[in-house]
Amino acid sequence: MKGVEKMQEPIWIGMLGLGTVGGGTLHILQSRAEDITRRLGRPVKVKKVLVRNLQKPRSVPVDAELLTDNPADILADPEISIVVEVMGGIHPALDYLETALKAGKNVVTANKDLMAVHGQQLFDLAAAKELDVEFEASVAGGIPIIRPLKICLAGNRIEVIKGIINGTTNFILSKMTSEGSDFADVLKEAQELGYAEADPTADVEGLDAARKLAILASIGFNSRVTLDQVYVEGITGITARDIEYAQQLGYTIKLLGIAKESEGQVEARVHPAMIPSQHPLATVQDAFNAIFVKGDAVGETMFYGRGAGDLPTGSAVVGDIIDVARNIINGHTGRIACTCYHEKRVKPIGQVECCYYLRLLVTEKPGVLASIAGVFGDQGVSIQTLIQKEQIESAAEIVLVTHHVREENLQKALQILATLPTVEAIGNVIRVEKD
Amino acid sequence: MKGVEKMQEPIWIGMLGLGTVGGGTLHILQSRAEDITRRLGRPVKVKKVLVRNLQKPRSVPVDAELLTDNPADILADPEISIVVEVMGGIHPALDYLETALKAGKNVVTANKDLMAVHGQQLFDLAAAKELDVEFEASVAGGIPIIRPLKICLAGNRIEVIKGIINGTTNFILSKMTSEGSDFADVLKEAQELGYAEADPTADVEGLDAARKLAILASIGFNSRVTLDQVYVEGITGITARDIEYAQQLGYTIKLLGIAKESEGQVEARVHPAMIPSQHPLATVQDAFNAIFVKGDAVGETMFYGRGAGDLPTGSAVVGDIIDVARNIINGHTGRIACTCYHEKRVKPIGQVECCYYLRLLVTEKPGVLASIAGVFGDQGVSIQTLIQKEQIESAAEIVLVTHHVREENLQKALQILATLPTVEAIGNVIRVEKD
Repeated sequence: MKGVEKMQEPIWIGMLGLGTVGGGTLHILQSRAEDITRRLGRPVKVKKVLVRNLQKPRSVPVDAELLTDNPADILADPEISIVVEVMGGIHPALDYLETALKAGKNVVTANKDLMAVHGQQLFDLAAAKELDVEFEASVAGGIPIIRPLKICLAGNRIEVIKGIINGTTNFILSKMTSEGSDFADVLKEAQELGYAEADPTADVEGLDAARKLAILASIGFNSRVTLDQVYVEGITGITARDIEYAQQLGYTIKLLGIAKESEGQVEARVHPAMIPSQHPLATVQDAFNAIFVKGDAVGETMFYGRGAGDLPTGSAVVGDIIDVARNIINGHTGRIACTCYHEKRVKPIGQVECCYYLRLLVTEKPGVLASIAGVFGDQGVSIQTLIQKEQIESAAEIVLVTHHVREENLQKALQILATLPTVEAIGNVIRVEKD
Repeated sequence: MKGVEKMQEPIWIGMLGLGTVGGGTLHILQSRAEDITRRLGRPVKVKKVLVRNLQKPRSVPVDAELLTDNPADILADPEISIVVEVMGGIHPALDYLETALKAGKNVVTANKDLMAVHGQQLFDLAAAKELDVEFEASVAGGIPIIRPLKICLAGNRIEVIKGIINGTTNFILSKMTSEGSDFADVLKEAQELGYAEADPTADVEGLDAARKLAILASIGFNSRVTLDQVYVEGITGITARDIEYAQQLGYTIKLLGIAKESEGQVEARVHPAMIPSQHPLATVQDAFNAIFVKGDAVGETMFYGRGAGDLPTGSAVVGDIIDVARNIINGHTGRIACTCYHEKRVKPIGQVECCYYLRLLVTEKPGVLASIAGVFGDQGVSIQTLIQKEQIESAAEIVLVTHHVREENLQKALQILATLPTVEAIGNVIRVEKD
């Protein structure tokens, strides 16, 4: 048992960044200070916060003396034992965290960009000094998912992870579905409401989701998957018309991050997908996130909540801070190292098997269906449903859903289809995830 | 760094019980042995399994030499460092676990009966020797919820926990809702399918859910709530008629475990409740479980999955075993002690506020509505909706939903209503959880 004085000594933390997540983190640390002290037996206190602009007004009340624009005030302060990185981006965050770990400081980070690319580096540095690197906030904001996957589900062979892990695109697709509106209109609305950034590229093109998926896949399959290994396709091509057809087919369109393991290989892809409207993920509305995990023992599980925002993300950061502080107090840091103890091949997208929805504009002529069916047949693509054929001016619209087929075969069939004189346009191709 | 020999030494576990959950646990430990060794650097092996009947055929292949009917073979074996209790019930499980903890063994248990009543005793014993007591499997089978609540959401003031934490009753209510059938018929079907026991009392009367709620409330509000403090009401009184009215009102009926904190007091209750059909919990079908948690920072979260069964529950048990084994290897056991560091009053049900659905059979006479409204008015019960009035033989059926009202006022009003000559019967009273 430590003496009373020692018990009163704070665990000092240094924060890198005071934007949305930083503000939320600081607010929670302040408002829950008493409870945290109670929980740990010692207070957790912020000693310094690194900001770019010392003069900028802050949304959360913060003592001006806490602010600094010199990273050394945190990274070189021997009293600070936890560095909380909430600045985002790769540089200079990576350099700061490497410096922090080399200086024996534990790390809590909300930085998906960093973890999806340089996770291994940080874990190696941490392992060498038995330090913690915790990053619950880097995926799906406030939703507990990293720790449940790493610890609670550790007895499972994870079969699949499917996540709605980008709030902006889920807001847009939910709106398009409920209102029948077009992508561009809803994007504008999302920007006005603050759900989408002025430059929405990272969200709507799927890049944000891809980063989170890389992190989830690495943990779920115990094998490092980095951002560049994730196939990415955004939602800008989804039209009101596709959503309407999806509904007729009993599907809902969501932007999913999907990671699977089969035959010792991992697939990791982010793209819009039609999922059965009864699937638990289909009911996830607005900017909410959810991660569906299927394990060989646990079966189907799902984790649902807010994937972004100051307080939800701050909740995850503070949960990590408390956990690391507990480890520091008990001398247990570094207890859970990197769990990527396998090296599994990541399948190129061409080798992935999937079902596909296709919308084609064809010339209304006898034999057109037969010629299309022939192209699919030649490529080994078998058609499960041909749902509708609707006159649009001089052309007809054909919508079909394939059985499971290799992506490369499907792509080959599409190339040939595009050369057929009866095919005026390939309206859209969307993957269908039936289970 | 320990020597190579030490690295190869197994962590030995002793299992108490080899029923459904025990069988699932053993199966997972066997099938995932290689991965677990990889994860921990050392194997986890079962040394002995306590069973009542050594001759009974087992669903999982098990070496006859592992079986014993003498608890001392586990509790007094100095090599066994984790005792896994999957026998259920309070006696002799409690005595065995007390003996195990006193002998310096860590405990993993799936036993909700025990944890809901004697959790504190076990935690006190564990704390004295810095041992682990882990019990993820005791609530909602395979769904990670204890650890997420204790660790990931530790920065939150939890406002409410609402759980579908009994699969049998959710199966029954889902079937009643989708098919319009009556309770008794669906119960029979559930028994035939193995979803309900021959004696379904503990499930349908809410007792099983109450145990899990006591555990969840204790963790969520950091204050011990025991089974006897939970108000319990089952689903046997729910009729197809109530479900039909619920649907008309936009609600779905679920058996919920609800724990809330307000003004420093905790409420803990299990009862059927009408919830908005758009609520994430409303879409939880069949025997699935889900726990909805609202925290001041994280907002709304939900954890969904299989709440029972050999492998799902075994998944949670094995997750705990791996965690405890890691703590043993690193000398970190006892790192998370009991988190009930507050002593909050549990509100008696009479002081709880809620909205209510009432179905009344009344004599069709002028002034009958006025007299009923008068009784409610006198007790401060204000009516929000009066949805229907339907002729049933000579009587009329009135269905109404109240605004928030104290339970004791509602009960008083019901007592007076029952004495009115125009009220032929109080058909049903069901709580409505609007948010």
